[in-house]
Amino acid sequence: VQLDQHAFLIDCGEGTQFQIRQFQLKTHKLQHIFISHLHGDHYFGLFGLLGSMSLQGRDLPLHLYAPPGLDEVLASTFRATQIAPDFPIYFHPLTSEKEQLILDHPALTVTAFPLSHRVPCFGFRFDEKPRLRKLLADLLPEDFPFELRKQLRNGQDVEWEGRAYPFAQFTAPPPPPRSYAYCTDTVYLPQTAQFAKGVDLLYHEATFMEANADKAPLTGHSTAKQAAQVALEAGAKSLILGHFSVRYPDLAPLLQEAQSIFPATFLAEEGKNFEIAVT
Amino acid sequence: VQLDQHAFLIDCGEGTQFQIRQFQLKTHKLQHIFISHLHGDHYFGLFGLLGSMSLQGRDLPLHLYAPPGLDEVLASTFRATQIAPDFPIYFHPLTSEKEQLILDHPALTVTAFPLSHRVPCFGFRFDEKPRLRKLLADLLPEDFPFELRKQLRNGQDVEWEGRAYPFAQFTAPPPPPRSYAYCTDTVYLPQTAQFAKGVDLLYHEATFMEANADKAPLTGHSTAKQAAQVALEAGAKSLILGHFSVRYPDLAPLLQEAQSIFPATFLAEEGKNFEIAVT
Repeated sequence: VQLDQHAFLIDCGEGTQFQIRQFQLKTHKLQHIFISHLHGDHYFGLFGLLGSMSLQGRDLPLHLYAPPGLDEVLASTFRATQIAPDFPIYFHPLTSEKEQLILDHPALTVTAFPLSHRVPCFGFRFDEKPRLRKLLADLLPEDFPFELRKQLRNGQDVEWEGRAYPFAQFTAPPPPPRSYAYCTDTVYLPQTAQFAKGVDLLYHEATFMEANADKAPLTGHSTAKQAAQVALEAGAKSLILGHFSVRYPDLAPLLQEAQSIFPATFLAEEGKNFEIAVT
Repeated sequence: VQLDQHAFLIDCGEGTQFQIRQFQLKTHKLQHIFISHLHGDHYFGLFGLLGSMSLQGRDLPLHLYAPPGLDEVLASTFRATQIAPDFPIYFHPLTSEKEQLILDHPALTVTAFPLSHRVPCFGFRFDEKPRLRKLLADLLPEDFPFELRKQLRNGQDVEWEGRAYPFAQFTAPPPPPRSYAYCTDTVYLPQTAQFAKGVDLLYHEATFMEANADKAPLTGHSTAKQAAQVALEAGAKSLILGHFSVRYPDLAPLLQEAQSIFPATFLAEEGKNFEIAVT
């Protein structure tokens, strides 16, 4: 997840550091990593990523949010390796059975919420903080001071050279804050729609198709139809499907299954970016 | 290392399971994995490889040869993941300060020998077992029994239909057994040439060039020239250089540096196979 100059990583499967390099992302911008659950395909890339960050001389702290146990795994690995990363790592264990604010960042908040898989597992919701109001610059004198412009954008009425400038007249409301929710791995849960209420973009796993729906609860996964159902109930604007079973070499039928219920559905494909436009 | 239908893996950096898939190797043939030392670039791919083997329903046992500590790391990781591989894993800790036979396999033997790096580190030598003698089939009657042919190849004189068939007359000596030694990561050590004496193929790390030779002992690595020196002293037939520092975007100068001392030198390149011909 990228917001302005900030980067956030959700899950870190094997090879993540190579993908980060391939897609030319900057790891020094990355200060928060969220791990949904401790199955290998969601965290086995963390050892190498942290090791490489350390080799690259990182000194910025890194915050890790994950179910309990990851701290021990990392400690035991770095003990064996005899090279512990020499930047601070703050481990934030996820344990709450309810929705919980886990990061209050200048640009956004991150909330964790419980999913239901074979091991403790969490979804994450990113909510952009409100931006400043839009300045209607054409209505202002050209030499109107920068500091006062900022006050107007902050929603304050100001005075300049004996004249009143009410913010409501010289600014428009800010663009609505954007939001994203990430739900994997999980069976279909009715309450997920509440946690993801009104998000611009929802990522929801779709391991199976309805034809294999009997396998979903046994393995702790969802179908494409169920993912679409969550998006519909949440009132999401768009849906990304991912975490497909290897039994489906062609993903078009999964996409169609979801789109029949929720048309604005897309497939998570390697290297694909989804942008939520500022409106 | 592949010998007939047998496969052996030396070191397992992050992404090894993807490379195995890309190069269409079969993991069920893999029953022995050798880890030189516990730095991440030599074993962080093991978690994912073992996890995937388990998901694929493997039940064949797997033997792991590595410095002590890897067993704990794996146990702690699989405890967190709550999915331990459900095939037997036998851990063989490498501790000897001398050359040590660690695997006596029907097709070959594997010997570990100490290297010198920043953590305990081992090289491995593979020696093919002698093959059967070559049958000079043209000299035999067409209906000469299979069982007796095998006895001749085993070096036994046989009799058939009242006639003597001395093995020396009806077979030629077997091809010389092939051998391979793998040495990484390590500073230059004079004794490495003894451990790799006469091998057909030697892999030796060449992290640096001589121009940066001052960095080699500090970091526990060798130069291309030193790798060539080992090959020369060992009387190896060919040398593969690998483990290059990222400071060398062009590897041609490293190759030239080694070839000036040991001409039959090659670069370890991703996906490249080196075949030792049966002579």
